[in-house]
Amino acid sequence: MYVRQVMELSVEGARVVLRAAIAHAEKMGVPQCIAIVDRGGNLLVFERMEGAKLLSQHSAIQKAITAASHRTSTGGLPTDLAFGIALATGTRYAAIAGGVPIEIEGEVVGAIGVGSGTDEEDIEVAQVGIEALKAVLSSHPKSAS
Amino acid sequence: MYVRQVMELSVEGARVVLRAAIAHAEKMGVPQCIAIVDRGGNLLVFERMEGAKLLSQHSAIQKAITAASHRTSTGGLPTDLAFGIALATGTRYAAIAGGVPIEIEGEVVGAIGVGSGTDEEDIEVAQVGIEALKAVLSSHPKSAS
Amino acid sequence: MYVRQVMELSVEGARVVLRAAIAHAEKMGVPQCIAIVDRGGNLLVFERMEGAKLLSQHSAIQKAITAASHRTSTGGLPTDLAFGIALATGTRYAAIAGGVPIEIEGEVVGAIGVGSGTDEEDIEVAQVGIEALKAVLSSHPKSAS
Amino acid sequence: MYVRQVMELSVEGARVVLRAAIAHAEKMGVPQCIAIVDRGGNLLVFERMEGAKLLSQHSAIQKAITAASHRTSTGGLPTDLAFGIALATGTRYAAIAGGVPIEIEGEVVGAIGVGSGTDEEDIEVAQVGIEALKAVLSSHPKSAS
Repeated sequence: MYVRQVMELSVEGARVVLRAAIAHAEKMGVPQCIAIVDRGGNLLVFERMEGAKLLSQHSAIQKAITAASHRTSTGGLPTDLAFGIALATGTRYAAIAGGVPIEIEGEVVGAIGVGSGTDEEDIEVAQVGIEALKAVLSSHPKSAS
Repeated sequence: MYVRQVMELSVEGARVVLRAAIAHAEKMGVPQCIAIVDRGGNLLVFERMEGAKLLSQHSAIQKAITAASHRTSTGGLPTDLAFGIALATGTRYAAIAGGVPIEIEGEVVGAIGVGSGTDEEDIEVAQVGIEALKAVLSSHPKSAS
Repeated sequence: MYVRQVMELSVEGARVVLRAAIAHAEKMGVPQCIAIVDRGGNLLVFERMEGAKLLSQHSAIQKAITAASHRTSTGGLPTDLAFGIALATGTRYAAIAGGVPIEIEGEVVGAIGVGSGTDEEDIEVAQVGIEALKAVLSSHPKSAS
Repeated sequence: MYVRQVMELSVEGARVVLRAAIAHAEKMGVPQCIAIVDRGGNLLVFERMEGAKLLSQHSAIQKAITAASHRTSTGGLPTDLAFGIALATGTRYAAIAGGVPIEIEGEVVGAIGVGSGTDEEDIEVAQVGIEALKAVLSSHPKSAS
C-alpha cells in the first residue's frame, strides 16, 4: 500500500476529550493544563485552567507530542535515557507522567497531555478524557468511521 | 504603587472569544488556528480547526503573544524591522496580521492570534471573537470585576 | 468571571524587593544574581552583584519564573522529576532553591529568584527582599490597591 | 602580554547608566526595557518600566549583548546579513537600533540595550544613560581607575 487509510482524531473528537478532562479536573479541584494533539503530533486543542502552573502550558503540549510519537504513556518511559533523548529531539521529549496516547480500535489516533497536578492526577484526568471519547464512539459507532 | 490591581482575561472569557471566533470562521468557510493568551502572554486556550494549516499552530500563538506584548494589532507592525525584532526576541515576535489585543475598559487584558486565512480573514475572525466577549461583558457588567 | 481583577507586582515594588535583597546580600558578604518577575513570569528587574557567578544570571531568572509559575518556593520542588520537567518546558524550569513567590494578601503577584550563594543564602536573600515589600505595604496600605 | 589589564563596567557603573536612562525615558513619556551588560556580554542590570512591551525584555538584552560583541551601535549594523548572522549565533544577534556600546577612554567596557520605543527613542535613552556615566567619571576621575 503506497497510500493508506489511517484513523485520526479530529478537532471535534479532541473537544470531547478536553471537555471531559476539564470537567473531571474541576471535580477533583486540581487546575490543569491540557493539550490534545493528532496522530502527527500537531496541536488540536489546549486549555489552561484557572490556577494551573504557567510552565505546564509547555509541558502539557510536550507530553501529548511525546505520547503520540512513542504511542505509549509518558509516565512509563525510561527516565535514564530521558536527558539524552530530550536533547536529541530538540527538547521535544517529555519523559514525565501525564501524556497518554488516544487509542481507538488498536490504533493511536492522537494523544492527550496533562500537567500541573501530581503524576497520578495528571494521568487520571487524561484517562477520563479518553474514556469520554470512547463512550461517545461506542454509542454512535459510525462516528468513528 | 508597589502592587497594583490589573484586569486579566480569564479562561472563561477566553472560551467566549474562542467559540465566537470559531463559529465565525466556520460561517466564512475558512479553517483557522486560534490562540488566546492572557495579559502576560501565557496561553489560555487554543484550537486548530479541521483543515487549518499545520504551521499556523505556531504562528497563531506567536501573533497572540506579540499582540499582548505590544498592545497593538500585529498587522500594523512595521515589516522592515520584523526579521530583526523576531530574531532579537528569540523568534517570539510575529509582525504579520492576525494578532489583536483584547482591550476591556481601556486596558489590554489578553490577546487573540488567528492564522491560516488571508490577513483580512484572520483579523475579521479575531475581531468577531473580541466583540463576543464585549457583548457578554456589557450584558453582565459585574462579570468584569 | 470573564475578566477578573488580579494583583500584580509593579516595577516600583520590584525595586523595593531588589534593593533590600542586595543590601542583605552585601551585609552577608555573598554576591548574588537577583531577578524579579511579575505574576505572568515576565522579567521586571535584575541585578548581578560584583563577584556573582556568571551563569547565575540565567538560573536566577529561571528560578523566579518557576516560582511564579508554580506559586511555590523552588527549593521544595521534587528533584527526581527536575530533569524531565525542565526539558518538557523548554528548559524554563529550575528545581533548585532560591526562587520564592511574592505573595501579597494570599495572592502570588510575582516572584524573586536568587542565585550564586548556597541554597540557604539564596533563600535568605529572597525572603529579606520580600519582607521589605511587605513592610512598605503595611505602612502604606493604600499602595497595594 | 599574556594577561592584560582591561576596563570593565561594574554593577555600580551600570546602575548609574540605568537610573539616568530610566529618568530620561520617564521624562520622554516612553516606557522602555533597559538592559546593561559588561564587556563580556553578561547581564549586569535590567529594568522593564511600567507599560513597556513584554517582548522587549528579550530584545533589550540581545541589543546590549550585540553592541558589546560588535563594539558598535546596533542600529548601524547591516540588515542584509542580519538573518544569517542571527541564525549563526543562535539568535543572539540583534541588528536593530537601541544597542549602544559604553566606551570609556576608547575602550568598550560594556553596553546598553534599550527597547520598546521607536529607533530614535531607544537610541536617545541609551545615549543619555551613557552620558550620565561619563559625567560621573569626569567629575570623579579616579572612579574610572
